[in-house]
Amino acid sequence: MKGIFITIEGPDGAGKTSVLQEVLPQLKEMTRREIVATREPGGIPIAEEIREVILHPKNTAMDERTEALLFAASRRQHLVEKIIPALNRGAIVIADRFVDSSLAYQGAGRGLGMDEIAQINLFATEGITPDLTIYLDVDSETGLSRIANSRMNEVNRLDLDAMSFHQRVRHGYLKLLELYPERIKKVDARLSLPFVIEQVMELLVDEFPTEFSDV
Amino acid sequence: MKGIFITIEGPDGAGKTSVLQEVLPQLKEMTRREIVATREPGGIPIAEEIREVILHPKNTAMDERTEALLFAASRRQHLVEKIIPALNRGAIVIADRFVDSSLAYQGAGRGLGMDEIAQINLFATEGITPDLTIYLDVDSETGLSRIANSRMNEVNRLDLDAMSFHQRVRHGYLKLLELYPERIKKVDARLSLPFVIEQVMELLVDEFPTEFSDV
Ligand SMILES: Nc1ncnc2c1ncn2[C@@H]1O[C@H](COP(=O)(O)OP(=O)(O)O)[C@@H](O)[C@H]1O
Ligand SMILES: Nc1ncnc2c1ncn2[C@@H]1O[C@H](COP(=O)(O)OP(=O)(O)O)[C@@H](O)[C@H]1O
Ligand SMILES: [Mg+2]
Ligand SMILES: [Mg+2]
Repeated sequence: MKGIFITIEGPDGAGKTSVLQEVLPQLKEMTRREIVATREPGGIPIAEEIREVILHPKNTAMDERTEALLFAASRRQHLVEKIIPALNRGAIVIADRFVDSSLAYQGAGRGLGMDEIAQINLFATEGITPDLTIYLDVDSETGLSRIANSRMNEVNRLDLDAMSFHQRVRHGYLKLLELYPERIKKVDARLSLPFVIEQVMELLVDEFPTEFSDV
Repeated sequence: MKGIFITIEGPDGAGKTSVLQEVLPQLKEMTRREIVATREPGGIPIAEEIREVILHPKNTAMDERTEALLFAASRRQHLVEKIIPALNRGAIVIADRFVDSSLAYQGAGRGLGMDEIAQINLFATEGITPDLTIYLDVDSETGLSRIANSRMNEVNRLDLDAMSFHQRVRHGYLKLLELYPERIKKVDARLSLPFVIEQVMELLVDEFPTEFSDV
């Protein structure tokens, strides 16, 4: 495939969405290539319907393995209908979350095992892997308090379950960073947003100097 | 688990549903145990919703791997909410299709690979396997003409795609029979329905003599 596949990852509150919002317009100025920004389910009708099943409140509980299979199914359809065609056109695809999120959330966070989640996602992706993954690293206290803040100003009411889940997710990400140091690059996301954005921009220019040239 | 888990498998038109219809009342007469007859999605709301996604006509095509993941997800929820609780109660569970159908249909029929489909289903089942699988074997000509017959009397209009797909499915089942001779027992389903039923009954009485006693 002629395109470039970039993902941005990290626990909730790391700043993925905020960073992309600032970075994407800058990247568009710096390159002549098509840039496709996306996140699952990405407006793909089948993937959207699968997400509705995941999110819909039910009279009975959704099993965690069912949920992991549904995430993989939604990802597959998004990949086939949106990401692969864009890469085939030669676009730069930037995705807010991808397989690593399932490894960290379902694998490490929910404790289903990162290897097992990797297997079902390998079936879903047929081995298509990002060329670069930017990992926004944030401690759980900071990440959760940003989210609480943005939602309802209840900084000091972080519940303990959320905290330990968030910590397991972060450790999952740190494990992935250890396993794939070539692909995954860490950015310290505890810093203020402008600094995080600056680091992300530098990383992208460094990794793809011919694609993004500082004007 | 205290129960017994039995599945019935075979290509379309093998007679699974017809056989169960006759066999279930007889089995109920012959045992004092609870018998639970089921087939996916089995009235489990989450599994039913996933099936709707699989079946719903879309403006774009469902990818075959997406579909395989959705089948595994629906199976998982059905297993967790219906089969496992019944087996824990000590029931005899008889399921019309289970994992072997995905191995034969998605793995062999659609060509996704039986090993790969086995992996995602192993994730879904955590290794829960039927104690006995009755495989109704039928050649593709017979199987397809039964279905055409039952639907609209178009015996001679079997299309070639359907035929070669049906043949791949059957070969998938025959491969499974070879791999798991202890678990899977073959019944010749080309014979007339009463003979097929007789063979199935004999098999069940043979395999579980203390559960089913001929009166
Ligand atoms: N570096 C940062 N410093 C302070 N607050 C931040 C920072 N990055 C994001 N935030 C705030 O944290 C909240 C969550 O950010 P968001 O970009 O949605 O994170 P994510 O998409 O990784 O979950 C938002 O209210 C955002 O304004
Ligand atoms: N042994 C048999 N001989 C002749 N017709 C049969 C036999 N078994 C089933 N049928 C007919 O074939 C059709 C498909 O049977 P069904 O039980 O629905 O198969 P399956 O559930 O395996 O797809 C029905 O019309 C049924 O009456
Ligand atoms: Mg976000
Ligand atoms: Mg049937």
